[in-house]
Amino acid sequence: MSKKTKTFRPKARRVKGFEDRSGAILRAEQSLINAASIVFDAHGFEPLATPSFEYADALGKFLPDEERPNAGVFAIEDDDKQWLALRYDHTAPLARFVAQNYDGLAKPFRRSAVGSVWRNEKPGPGRFREFIQIDADTVGTKNPAADAEMIILAAKVMGAVPLVCEDFVININDRRLLDALLSDIGVPETEAGALQKGIVVRAIDKLDRLGERGVEFLLGDGRKDESGDFTKGAGLTPAAIGQVLNFTRAGIKQRSDTLTALQNLLGVSEYAAAALGDLKLIDALLSSAGLNDQKARFDPSIVRGLGYYTGPVFEADITLNTNDAKGRPVRFGSVGGGGRYDGLVARFKGVEVPATGFSFGVSRLAAVLASLENQQQATNGPIVVLALEPEQMSNYFAMAEELRNAGIRAEVYLGTSGMKAQMKYADKRNAPAVVIVGEDERNAGNVTVKNLVLGAKMSEKITDNTQWREGRPAQVTDKRENLITLVRASLQ
Amino acid sequence: MSKKTKTFRPKARRVKGFEDRSGAILRAEQSLINAASIVFDAHGFEPLATPSFEYADALGKFLPDEERPNAGVFAIEDDDKQWLALRYDHTAPLARFVAQNYDGLAKPFRRSAVGSVWRNEKPGPGRFREFIQIDADTVGTKNPAADAEMIILAAKVMGAVPLVCEDFVININDRRLLDALLSDIGVPETEAGALQKGIVVRAIDKLDRLGERGVEFLLGDGRKDESGDFTKGAGLTPAAIGQVLNFTRAGIKQRSDTLTALQNLLGVSEYAAAALGDLKLIDALLSSAGLNDQKARFDPSIVRGLGYYTGPVFEADITLNTNDAKGRPVRFGSVGGGGRYDGLVARFKGVEVPATGFSFGVSRLAAVLASLENQQQATNGPIVVLALEPEQMSNYFAMAEELRNAGIRAEVYLGTSGMKAQMKYADKRNAPAVVIVGEDERNAGNVTVKNLVLGAKMSEKITDNTQWREGRPAQVTDKRENLITLVRASLQ
Repeated sequence: MSKKTKTFRPKARRVKGFEDRSGAILRAEQSLINAASIVFDAHGFEPLATPSFEYADALGKFLPDEERPNAGVFAIEDDDKQWLALRYDHTAPLARFVAQNYDGLAKPFRRSAVGSVWRNEKPGPGRFREFIQIDADTVGTKNPAADAEMIILAAKVMGAVPLVCEDFVININDRRLLDALLSDIGVPETEAGALQKGIVVRAIDKLDRLGERGVEFLLGDGRKDESGDFTKGAGLTPAAIGQVLNFTRAGIKQRSDTLTALQNLLGVSEYAAAALGDLKLIDALLSSAGLNDQKARFDPSIVRGLGYYTGPVFEADITLNTNDAKGRPVRFGSVGGGGRYDGLVARFKGVEVPATGFSFGVSRLAAVLASLENQQQATNGPIVVLALEPEQMSNYFAMAEELRNAGIRAEVYLGTSGMKAQMKYADKRNAPAVVIVGEDERNAGNVTVKNLVLGAKMSEKITDNTQWREGRPAQVTDKRENLITLVRASLQ
Repeated sequence: MSKKTKTFRPKARRVKGFEDRSGAILRAEQSLINAASIVFDAHGFEPLATPSFEYADALGKFLPDEERPNAGVFAIEDDDKQWLALRYDHTAPLARFVAQNYDGLAKPFRRSAVGSVWRNEKPGPGRFREFIQIDADTVGTKNPAADAEMIILAAKVMGAVPLVCEDFVININDRRLLDALLSDIGVPETEAGALQKGIVVRAIDKLDRLGERGVEFLLGDGRKDESGDFTKGAGLTPAAIGQVLNFTRAGIKQRSDTLTALQNLLGVSEYAAAALGDLKLIDALLSSAGLNDQKARFDPSIVRGLGYYTGPVFEADITLNTNDAKGRPVRFGSVGGGGRYDGLVARFKGVEVPATGFSFGVSRLAAVLASLENQQQATNGPIVVLALEPEQMSNYFAMAEELRNAGIRAEVYLGTSGMKAQMKYADKRNAPAVVIVGEDERNAGNVTVKNLVLGAKMSEKITDNTQWREGRPAQVTDKRENLITLVRASLQ
């Protein structure tokens, strides 16, 4: 063409903190999304897709300030001088949507969401600036049955995930129990008290990592870590610290036992009575849904990080213990959670619109699945039909199509290299077998199917391959019309 | 809680130029994505998900300038002063990915992609700043069989779309034919010639809208539109204009006839010979894939807007003629297309990496489907189980679960309103029926199923409903254990 090529040549590089995803990870993501969608749909949830962008003021606490408009979110100034920001979760956009369309919605309003969320943060190992979340929310009811349904949904989604479906637990708590406890202890309902409460919540959230001893410091005067950095504590008395730790230990195997223990610890408080009443209903609904004490536990040490929760909260944990490729133990931990947030829509409406929901980190869960799948070394490439004679392309296309029509993934080699390079290509594609029709086969009306998995095994045990070669040869030639039978046999 | 509510109250409003999608649109989107994914997977394409952001310099022609960093794209300056931009298609990120990972890829590299793309443009009716595209691409081969496979994929995806699967056509051309024609006419291979060629391409692209007469002006001195605005033309001679229009008319019903016509028009040129040879192979492969002349046509009037195409190009058109809700005829037109772009990866690599691919506007196609579906007035809400006695919630949950296990979408009403409001809710949810267990039913071990569709019909023809009422009553009460049978009967 006549156009001059520019001398400027950009370097091909992915933006830092972002991923290119493919293969097992992406397949796992898609199967998770499909599994969750089926569950949500069966429960009458309607999918809702809000835009990637919201007006920054609608996102609430991540309001960009003029000095650092990108703090926490990816923000951009629109032509009309309004700030837009990419959503950092699906909950804030839902609050905006509900407030904007309140009168037209059938309430309680059940919706599901799936899509990327963005965090403009320093990336770290396994921490990305874009990842996929799946959400389900019910807006417009204080009914604890709605919270119970969320927990049931979370359990159903986990139960639909291959490889981990037997090895998960939903841990449940209620924020009001902690409120009751702190009120008992004497933390005041002032701004100073709220700050103190925040420190307590964050301390409890670290139980897993620091153990009771470390949390004890954080509940008291403070804690110096290995590097010498000091974190100021909540300043509770030793007696109060004991009460808090005692509270976090109240999670017992049977849900009913935990309720009794909590009743004894907190029963006099009004907050606690409301929370315990709701948890009792939730317990009954979980039981009638077949969620036993192994799959759904009450655990007061679960607090969830976000500030906006106002009632029941829960977390989905993978309990599977496995080793990575190097034999080191892998603990997967939490892949999602949620809870009741009655105040979020009120930011727009001025009146309280109660809501409950949960969120799953799809990317997180997909990474777990992909790592488990990799350990099983799945061979899931397509059958490759070699293209040995350029003018026979129609025949190759026809064979590949025949395979697809029989439900077998297949592709024709579309490069222009010779047989050896084509075999190498098939290997790289993880093809279980290749279909070969060269001049000889064509003249004889034949087709050759070469099993690459078997072929690889044979070359591994080259000294001891007699029974392989005789019993199930890696390569078979037969009549062209037997293509499907041959390929099927080689796939077994 | 102790936290003070802020007095600042943001207005709940969607960002201009963006959509909230739900209901029929979103279901149509998902079914399209699923259908396409199945087709791509069967052909051995591997899904690849690149990040939403690319470095702006990698996006090529949309490089933000310092004055208007957001021109065309949503761009943002990262902490390290590099400009990022949200992808405006899936092709530019693919080129970056291939250049970055070239040596490790099995080539030809087949990949599929699905996801949002963003355009920072003035929004208009039906034109949004974010929409979903599905792509398939084969990188690393000049083999026209790869172009043929793209066309076959496009046809398979269209064929998998309900409602339009019989009413589409893929229109195919080759950019080199136009190059040959313009070379014949005497358009030089200079920068001035490239500009002139650009005007010709844009003129041909307007055939649909302006007709031959309007395009004739644009190929000549220029055209004044209704508003009086003047568009400068390509400045071709009347004879040359005749040749161009003659060329665009060469699309004849049979692909082989079009090839003969083009051979006669352009046969002497080297460009044309290469293009016609490739189209001949493509014709043979389409035929062997069962794509007849009605489903895939050669049409020289198809040029495709993008500048980077270098060989075969094609467009998928919906040919279905239908009327909208107000009885006005609706023409759907093009929903996707693609072609060969051998120069795109070269921007990074310096060496040419041939590639071919196509892109479908999912949002566009979903809008078509949703509008067709709306005309059919589908009722696809869930069965609503009314919650009439709060302490019976476990029973309602159990009934809903029983329905789901029988493959029936169901939900429990989770608000706290009475029976009348619950019936209204069910109506708003498009529920085909409600399940009622009040105190009477419960004491008798019964369940009532009320058919809302039938109920609505009955109230419409209130004067003539005898046969409805007697033949299939809108409401049936029977034993609780017959729940599934009752609901199934009411769904028929």
